[in-house]
Amino acid sequence: MNYTSIKNIDNLSQWVQDALEIKRNPLKNKKLGKNKTLGMLFFNPSLRTRLSTQKAALNLGMNVMAMNFTSEGWTLEFEDGVIMNQAASEHIKEAAEVISQYCDIIAIRAFAGLIDKEKDNAETVMAGFLKHATVPIVNMEGATGHPLQSLADAITMEEHKTTHRPKVVLSWAPHPRALPQAVANSFVEMMQLQNADFVITHPEGYELNPEITKDSKIEYDQDKAFENADFIYAKNWSNYNEYGQITNADSNWTITADKMNLTNNAKFMHCLPVRRNMIVTDEVIDSENSIVIEQANNRTYSAQLVLKKILENGK
Amino acid sequence: MNYTSIKNIDNLSQWVQDALEIKRNPLKNKKLGKNKTLGMLFFNPSLRTRLSTQKAALNLGMNVMAMNFTSEGWTLEFEDGVIMNQAASEHIKEAAEVISQYCDIIAIRAFAGLIDKEKDNAETVMAGFLKHATVPIVNMEGATGHPLQSLADAITMEEHKTTHRPKVVLSWAPHPRALPQAVANSFVEMMQLQNADFVITHPEGYELNPEITKDSKIEYDQDKAFENADFIYAKNWSNYNEYGQITNADSNWTITADKMNLTNNAKFMHCLPVRRNMIVTDEVIDSENSIVIEQANNRTYSAQLVLKKILENGK
Amino acid sequence: MNYTSIKNIDNLSQWVQDALEIKRNPLKNKKLGKNKTLGMLFFNPSLRTRLSTQKAALNLGMNVMAMNFTSEGWTLEFEDGVIMNQAASEHIKEAAEVISQYCDIIAIRAFAGLIDKEKDNAETVMAGFLKHATVPIVNMEGATGHPLQSLADAITMEEHKTTHRPKVVLSWAPHPRALPQAVANSFVEMMQLQNADFVITHPEGYELNPEITKDSKIEYDQDKAFENADFIYAKNWSNYNEYGQITNADSNWTITADKMNLTNNAKFMHCLPVRRNMIVTDEVIDSENSIVIEQANNRTYSAQLVLKKILENGK
Repeated sequence: MNYTSIKNIDNLSQWVQDALEIKRNPLKNKKLGKNKTLGMLFFNPSLRTRLSTQKAALNLGMNVMAMNFTSEGWTLEFEDGVIMNQAASEHIKEAAEVISQYCDIIAIRAFAGLIDKEKDNAETVMAGFLKHATVPIVNMEGATGHPLQSLADAITMEEHKTTHRPKVVLSWAPHPRALPQAVANSFVEMMQLQNADFVITHPEGYELNPEITKDSKIEYDQDKAFENADFIYAKNWSNYNEYGQITNADSNWTITADKMNLTNNAKFMHCLPVRRNMIVTDEVIDSENSIVIEQANNRTYSAQLVLKKILENGK
Repeated sequence: MNYTSIKNIDNLSQWVQDALEIKRNPLKNKKLGKNKTLGMLFFNPSLRTRLSTQKAALNLGMNVMAMNFTSEGWTLEFEDGVIMNQAASEHIKEAAEVISQYCDIIAIRAFAGLIDKEKDNAETVMAGFLKHATVPIVNMEGATGHPLQSLADAITMEEHKTTHRPKVVLSWAPHPRALPQAVANSFVEMMQLQNADFVITHPEGYELNPEITKDSKIEYDQDKAFENADFIYAKNWSNYNEYGQITNADSNWTITADKMNLTNNAKFMHCLPVRRNMIVTDEVIDSENSIVIEQANNRTYSAQLVLKKILENGK
Repeated sequence: MNYTSIKNIDNLSQWVQDALEIKRNPLKNKKLGKNKTLGMLFFNPSLRTRLSTQKAALNLGMNVMAMNFTSEGWTLEFEDGVIMNQAASEHIKEAAEVISQYCDIIAIRAFAGLIDKEKDNAETVMAGFLKHATVPIVNMEGATGHPLQSLADAITMEEHKTTHRPKVVLSWAPHPRALPQAVANSFVEMMQLQNADFVITHPEGYELNPEITKDSKIEYDQDKAFENADFIYAKNWSNYNEYGQITNADSNWTITADKMNLTNNAKFMHCLPVRRNMIVTDEVIDSENSIVIEQANNRTYSAQLVLKKILENGK
């Protein structure tokens, strides 16, 4: 069993209930991971994912070996058949097969490069490990998805929803640097599994990959989207059509108290790290309705559920 | 309970005795830290602190998650109210609150920048975590203090003193690079809690922050200061008045065997790393009277005492 | 007991049998390392060594503290008697003595610089730790040897040999970057302890250190060397005579299927990471006769045997 995409969730509401059960008693399965090793491979920086996934593994009694791949290891080659006379010292084939022998589960963080859309969509690193590793793979944010985050988001919404079918708005917001679409993608895919009135709002031209959004509702008028919302999920992403570009930095899209006033007393969500007063004003993120810290807390239980399922499955 | 300053020590002589008890039986409290996690955040390099604090946590049965913040995580913003459209990706408020959810204790190393005295004196990083974290904070060397080091120094002096009220000299010595005042500051504050004849000696102009030295004796004549000393504690620091500058590199201040001969067969101390033949000659640091290695050893017990107190306090 | 060279192996065939016993039951000695700490110090990148040595320690129940010395710690001075007014902040003497107080075993990776032959042959870093540390030292690849690798190679050959006295060929192969001789050196020293027909083949001028190769057979004709071989061990190394230079990049030395056809259905070996289609063609390394992944797997048991012996010896 791998967890590289929201598509790996067979029953989201059951997974959310299972995660909440773990949250109530995080050390209950302390023996499940005994003598099992999680290898965490980072091709990019990480704070929440690094610490929460490690914490989840420790809660399950696992050993953890973390490695910053780019600085501590060797540059990898992902193409088949090439003459390796350039920078890459090791082929993904060997790397993945070898690491599989030292670890029972391999978790990987490898962001989009935002230069080559086709290459990012191919999820070169994740796909390379999926193809060549002989143990389960966990996605700690790939080029096109961040399913541990979205599972934590689902847990958090379950805890804070006040109506059976909440209105949930994913709102684009401005950011000074070009960011991947990964978090937004997985959030959309997760929401498509929920009983909710789900709306995506962003400037025209900022459409996400249509193969992911499918028939999810898009509303270009942010104010209109916010009406009666129960959850506002803010996130920046760079332009998917003009790939990896910043074509809009309009501060009118920043989430403000005035905008939150259009909602049904909505909870404010963001995956963090967040640029204050770019994505969201201090007033909103510091308000009682902000649940960003709880979202981050639930990263532990999201990861712990996934690791637990893999460990149980492996038996 | 936090440990960010010598001021957090309520009873130094009792703490020293408790640490010596831990040293005699370091694994006695192996169960105290079970299922507790120490997060170690490094904004600067570290050898002794990194390994000894980790060792201390392991001796208490704790889990350890270490992170090099600057290379592995996100650049932090410490100012409130700013529009975060520059280099910093994450505000200390979120970072501290989030990490508090994954760790039971957060230990932080964040050196002085030595450019902006006011900013260094404000201990931006440490103060940010103190303000926003919801778990205890341990100072692994901040901009203005290194209290784990000074506690280890107190333990080491207790082991090696031969008189009830020793004469202890903190001596400045030359160094090719501008160093913070942190170690010297905490040593001074720790000595102010001791029953000792304490003297600080340094070139004129190299006075430490007077709010720290208070009425501690200063003697500009190094030879005179050394007379009858039982302990010589060598340390370089950059100029506090001409902030962060090296205004003196006089090799006459190097601790030599001739100078040690002025003392009462004094022990030689330094926090390490030490520049040989700049701070101190090979002859002195390699002599039987040098206790620098034992000082480093006691870093484990200093950290273990602090972690133990926090774990017990948290109950 | 240290393990810094193949010379530390008193009885190779017994060690190989012991390692195979560990491989059959890797958790049998889970209590041996309880409350013991392995310090892993990296002066260079590492994948297999980093993960397999850590895994070996975990299998023995040890704690592990890993440190990237150059980025996380202080630059070390290795010369005695110098005035330390240059880049180095700490002398090996203090570093080694101090780390010995926090760790029960110190493992070190410090590659050859390939600029100064004399300095590399002196194994400055390894020798410095050997001289000043007060706990056992394990070589995780030094300037002139990689004995954990060669022990894993011996284990792997034992598992795959089909004749009592196999023919084993160490073949040089081209590589775009200058590599150390360490792996080849230790392999030669290990083979000199084996009952085998051992041949080294490389272009003229690429002779390894004659103090290591001694009377091992050298055959400059690669095809002739391959005749009837049972094992082909490929490895690049830079020129030892024109020290650290690449004086040959002849792709005729690449291990191809045609060359493997000259052998007695030989197994293909390489320590990894390997440059595909430089050192060896895809066809050969992807063939059934390639045992490179098993070699990497045996790194765990090679390291675990060494750590086990040291832990038992220390009692």
